[in-house]
Amino acid sequence: MAIITLTTDFGHKDHFVGAIKGTILNNLPEVNVVDISHEISPFNIQECAYILKNAYRAFPAGTVHIVGVDSELSPENQHIVVQVEDQFIISANNGVISLITSETIPEKVMEIDIPNINPSSFPVLNVFVEVACHIARGGKLEVIGKPFNQLKELREFEPRITNEGKSIVGNVIYIDNYGNVITNIQRSLFEAYRNGREFEVIARTNKIKNIHNSYNGIVNFNLERGQRRGPGDALALFNSAGYVELAIYKSDLKTVGGASSLLGLGYRDTVTINFL
Amino acid sequence: MAIITLTTDFGHKDHFVGAIKGTILNNLPEVNVVDISHEISPFNIQECAYILKNAYRAFPAGTVHIVGVDSELSPENQHIVVQVEDQFIISANNGVISLITSETIPEKVMEIDIPNINPSSFPVLNVFVEVACHIARGGKLEVIGKPFNQLKELREFEPRITNEGKSIVGNVIYIDNYGNVITNIQRSLFEAYRNGREFEVIARTNKIKNIHNSYNGIVNFNLERGQRRGPGDALALFNSAGYVELAIYKSDLKTVGGASSLLGLGYRDTVTINFL
Amino acid sequence: MAIITLTTDFGHKDHFVGAIKGTILNNLPEVNVVDISHEISPFNIQECAYILKNAYRAFPAGTVHIVGVDSELSPENQHIVVQVEDQFIISANNGVISLITSETIPEKVMEIDIPNINPSSFPVLNVFVEVACHIARGGKLEVIGKPFNQLKELREFEPRITNEGKSIVGNVIYIDNYGNVITNIQRSLFEAYRNGREFEVIARTNKIKNIHNSYNGIVNFNLERGQRRGPGDALALFNSAGYVELAIYKSDLKTVGGASSLLGLGYRDTVTINFL
Repeated sequence: MAIITLTTDFGHKDHFVGAIKGTILNNLPEVNVVDISHEISPFNIQECAYILKNAYRAFPAGTVHIVGVDSELSPENQHIVVQVEDQFIISANNGVISLITSETIPEKVMEIDIPNINPSSFPVLNVFVEVACHIARGGKLEVIGKPFNQLKELREFEPRITNEGKSIVGNVIYIDNYGNVITNIQRSLFEAYRNGREFEVIARTNKIKNIHNSYNGIVNFNLERGQRRGPGDALALFNSAGYVELAIYKSDLKTVGGASSLLGLGYRDTVTINFL
Repeated sequence: MAIITLTTDFGHKDHFVGAIKGTILNNLPEVNVVDISHEISPFNIQECAYILKNAYRAFPAGTVHIVGVDSELSPENQHIVVQVEDQFIISANNGVISLITSETIPEKVMEIDIPNINPSSFPVLNVFVEVACHIARGGKLEVIGKPFNQLKELREFEPRITNEGKSIVGNVIYIDNYGNVITNIQRSLFEAYRNGREFEVIARTNKIKNIHNSYNGIVNFNLERGQRRGPGDALALFNSAGYVELAIYKSDLKTVGGASSLLGLGYRDTVTINFL
Repeated sequence: MAIITLTTDFGHKDHFVGAIKGTILNNLPEVNVVDISHEISPFNIQECAYILKNAYRAFPAGTVHIVGVDSELSPENQHIVVQVEDQFIISANNGVISLITSETIPEKVMEIDIPNINPSSFPVLNVFVEVACHIARGGKLEVIGKPFNQLKELREFEPRITNEGKSIVGNVIYIDNYGNVITNIQRSLFEAYRNGREFEVIARTNKIKNIHNSYNGIVNFNLERGQRRGPGDALALFNSAGYVELAIYKSDLKTVGGASSLLGLGYRDTVTINFL
């Protein structure tokens, strides 16, 4: 069964998502529509890219991903379809594709060009859905678009190597549901510069001396419970997406707070790793 | 595959939606259960009607829509099934049907009448699901109900034509995920009274002199970026559902605010169009 | 079609749920993935158990339920699969199983033991999904695990019979989307001790003299509207899950408040039934 996913800033309350799913099912009765997220902060391209980048690879070849963030057509925001790693992403040319594919090269980039489409404030419904169903039925990209070579380039902050190779200066790129703080420092970069040295992760006034592979890496299960580090303690880890992440063990953002609030870190703030 | 949709005020946290989906799948293994919304404000019939009205038509003929808002059975709140435009809506007789079908005529209205149902505080689970599965399997309405002619009438505020045809006085009927303000003034009404005149949309102290067809209608892409109107500016548009909507271009309700907070407009507040 | 459900504290915004669904669909194209809840309070085992306990039985035999709350592997938090009432629950051994199965006996408890799994901060993705797909394909538990007899015991507060059988002292175990307050006092316990006596439900300074079977049980529909009790009035009922619940009729937690805020009741607070 064909798969179409949705990543939008529509929220879960309004009729938008329901209308989209109804229209898809009207076009293509045998289809699996999967919500990746509808809680992107409105018009936040960086957030959208982070979430879709870390989800899309999990899907089977042929999956069609609709991006419903900042999707209105304009002379500067064309409607495009991108084929990448045998999957398809339908989006406006707002930079999200360059962020998602920063470590890969799209196989094909097409500008959507279908006749008899009226300008609309809801192009996901009246353009993207039609294109998604066409692709999901096995249709060729050439039928609904033409080659496009003006992909808008957006770049996230990149970590910088400073201090003669003694420091990696990164930035916060995302804060998750637990208030955990994800940086743009990838494990591979860290390993490439470490050279076996000791190190400190510096986030404002906090120093952390280990980077674990799991959240409970800070817990020494050989100690009695009262002697251990545990809930409420700050830690760093290489998260499942491969980034250095700062977390509070077993945090709850709504009650005691998470790493973002307790360490005072927001989007774009600096996190530094110093090799000693 | 049969389609059953859910529109409720149950929220996404509690066990209610999971229990409903499990029960549907137990009754009817091959079914596509689609969430339209579970974030209706509790017991808010108007909100529920606005959302379902703007979503249901997108679905294929034969789709069964369950409405789980204010659904407890009482002598004044019968359980009903309505066939409208070849789709089915299962609901309590709380007025939501009259709002949804304000511009169409239901083909059939039946009161649900099935034996051996105990009174319950969760009738969506123990009544509506059984009826929905019966219909989704192709069963006749006559088997689970009897004709009903006491559909509760609720009417939204209607726009009024005043000032000798020089003004349309409308009201806010919904505020969406972006804080955009939707009025009850439909494009067709506006066009019928305009007669080629200039106009102003008045919302509290704000005057807006254009109604666009898309959000970026306020942006003049021929100007340099610095010269353009853009994010943060207020606009009016005919939205994808055909209503006059007031919006802040690229607003984020959680940070800078949206039209509702920035223009000071809430549910039922007045929005006036004056023809000049 | 096989069914796999998800009950997690991942929220709806991040990439976690999308990545899980993509991975499941990659493993098992014909599967129905059903969200039970992703809004469990982070690491809240009691909440998770309450929600899953009241949802899982609705699903058909053979359904596989993944629990993604506090799921990191540790010497004290093994990964397990439990077969209960012909369904399967995959979880960490954090106590949630003992709460879910407090009134039944699992048919089988296995510790997950699959080769070549790296420790990870996201075991739902790289362990639970693989196990779920194995079971959903009809695979034997013995292939992916070995018998386990150290199920962690967590017990919710139990209601106490005091005052020589004249009182049942219970506690709040959950607060739902409407702010309604669910206690751990089951209808069967109440009936067993009542012996035909009158009673009062005491919650802080409130006394309630009836326990209804539905929310609108407090409304006397024979009276004129102005004479009736109605929206805003407090009531007690046996809810659809069989527990004594305190509610405000037609409450909205976001506007006027619900039973939790208006009666001042939080998790674990005492609710007493005195027989007179």
